[in-house]
Amino acid sequence: MANVHLPKGMRDLLPPAMRRRLHVIDTVRRVFSTFGFEPLETPAMERIETLMGKYGEEGDKLIFKVLKRGEGGERGEADQALRYDLTVPLARVMAMNPNLPLPFRRYQVEPVWRADRPQRGRFRQFHQCDIDIVGTTSPQAEAECVAVVHAALVALGFDGFLIRINDRHILRQMAAAVGASALEVGMVTALDKLDKIGKSGVIEEMIRRGLTADQADGVFDMLDGAPVPGAEDAEANLARIVVLATELGVDPARIKIDRTLARGLDYYTGPVFETVLPEGNIGSISGGGRYDGLIGMFSGTDVPAVGVSLGL
Amino acid sequence: MANVHLPKGMRDLLPPAMRRRLHVIDTVRRVFSTFGFEPLETPAMERIETLMGKYGEEGDKLIFKVLKRGEGGERGEADQALRYDLTVPLARVMAMNPNLPLPFRRYQVEPVWRADRPQRGRFRQFHQCDIDIVGTTSPQAEAECVAVVHAALVALGFDGFLIRINDRHILRQMAAAVGASALEVGMVTALDKLDKIGKSGVIEEMIRRGLTADQADGVFDMLDGAPVPGAEDAEANLARIVVLATELGVDPARIKIDRTLARGLDYYTGPVFETVLPEGNIGSISGGGRYDGLIGMFSGTDVPAVGVSLGL
Repeated sequence: MANVHLPKGMRDLLPPAMRRRLHVIDTVRRVFSTFGFEPLETPAMERIETLMGKYGEEGDKLIFKVLKRGEGGERGEADQALRYDLTVPLARVMAMNPNLPLPFRRYQVEPVWRADRPQRGRFRQFHQCDIDIVGTTSPQAEAECVAVVHAALVALGFDGFLIRINDRHILRQMAAAVGASALEVGMVTALDKLDKIGKSGVIEEMIRRGLTADQADGVFDMLDGAPVPGAEDAEANLARIVVLATELGVDPARIKIDRTLARGLDYYTGPVFETVLPEGNIGSISGGGRYDGLIGMFSGTDVPAVGVSLGL
Repeated sequence: MANVHLPKGMRDLLPPAMRRRLHVIDTVRRVFSTFGFEPLETPAMERIETLMGKYGEEGDKLIFKVLKRGEGGERGEADQALRYDLTVPLARVMAMNPNLPLPFRRYQVEPVWRADRPQRGRFRQFHQCDIDIVGTTSPQAEAECVAVVHAALVALGFDGFLIRINDRHILRQMAAAVGASALEVGMVTALDKLDKIGKSGVIEEMIRRGLTADQADGVFDMLDGAPVPGAEDAEANLARIVVLATELGVDPARIKIDRTLARGLDYYTGPVFETVLPEGNIGSISGGGRYDGLIGMFSGTDVPAVGVSLGL
């Protein structure tokens, strides 16, 4: 082989792999359109200040920065960066186009870049397939997100998948019920690892993050089914989402309210959902939820939004 | 509007524009597939040494460089860069995959990035739609490239376009005929501006680039129809390409052998072609040709290739 290489963590898609990729992209686009989502493209690069500080300290380190052209670049200064996800660019688009009619329902199927330590089967450039509905608090929006994921997976020939759904309000009320409201983020972060480290691992991590053993046990009592004080509205809203989703074609056997679902990202503010394939151990193939604080970050106004991302 | 901006020379495609873009991409992909071209994807970033030095001094300056992660990046060091075109990445793919069966017929529809001074209607990220046939010297390959462009433009609803075709060998023989072989590159560069600066402007530039007025006049005698000594083989080959192209469905009224066609890039080694829309003045919407020296640059072997790029 010639002395020429790909950058670390990057790959080519030769024709057989690329044909499969195009089939998947065409299929999800068709499903997204059927549900009334509109296509959007944003540039691969954003201004560096648009991206930095949005993904936590760990995320910021994974952003690929682009040198200025000319003298600034010779001094090593960066002014642009490759996008890390498709959500922050959407927030920028909403801020720059305040006259877009709401709710704005867009899909975007494009690559993002993350300088992760490359692992087996993980790449530093990968496609995200995102749908988001901006400008409504109605549970109909959550139901549509769930129904789109369901329809896309069926169209792609997946079977036996399960959409788990929960609400961050319920987790918040659990933290409050055990007197650990100030430790809610740590509790959620620990709980997000349940599939990987099991109940005893999660309790250990909750304790390491400041909860007492009694508080951690109390949380697990509620995770196992004990009533959660003050969570009635959120639970009714979840039940409503499930009904609306089944009306939109979701197989009732494929959606399940699951109090243990946490989702790692800290920007979710309400319902969250995740899709897993029981067979095999490839983890979640789709995740999303309501994030009412993010879209308005550039415009300074409150803009409710809910979205879901499908991994390729 | 909020205090948030796009990088200079970048744009969003909001849904109406993006729907048009997707229609165009889907159409050209379908045409490319019909003619037996296979899809390829390469990563947006290449190693910096893969790209630098391939586009001339001016081109190198337009390459977006990406900072190393970690300490190297803090020192301002770059190790990757955004691709400037789709041809050098194809050459890398061919070098890294020496067992691909030849001829390899691939298409690639993807963005490239150039830090050009943004002008009206020009952007720093734009899509290229490239088809290339690697591994054959047959004029059938040129005919297929021309026929694909013709079919794609017809499918997109274009009318009245004209595909001009010429051969660098003929221009080389013209330079030889007037005793200016050493000045061939300057002669071609000047001639490439014929549409913009006219015959008198080209003659002026040829003189500035070292030809005598007599030599420049001699070149124009041949451009106007006088026989070109030693160009018989190239002219027969061009005529053969036209016949083969019409057999592949090209309307004979839409293809024209034109001795004045030069194409700016210096890597072309044989037939070159360009498509123009007579109405309006948007210049060429497609260009290409044979470039037998480029694909082998990484592998050190001679690999013939011909390709064409369609602008979106």
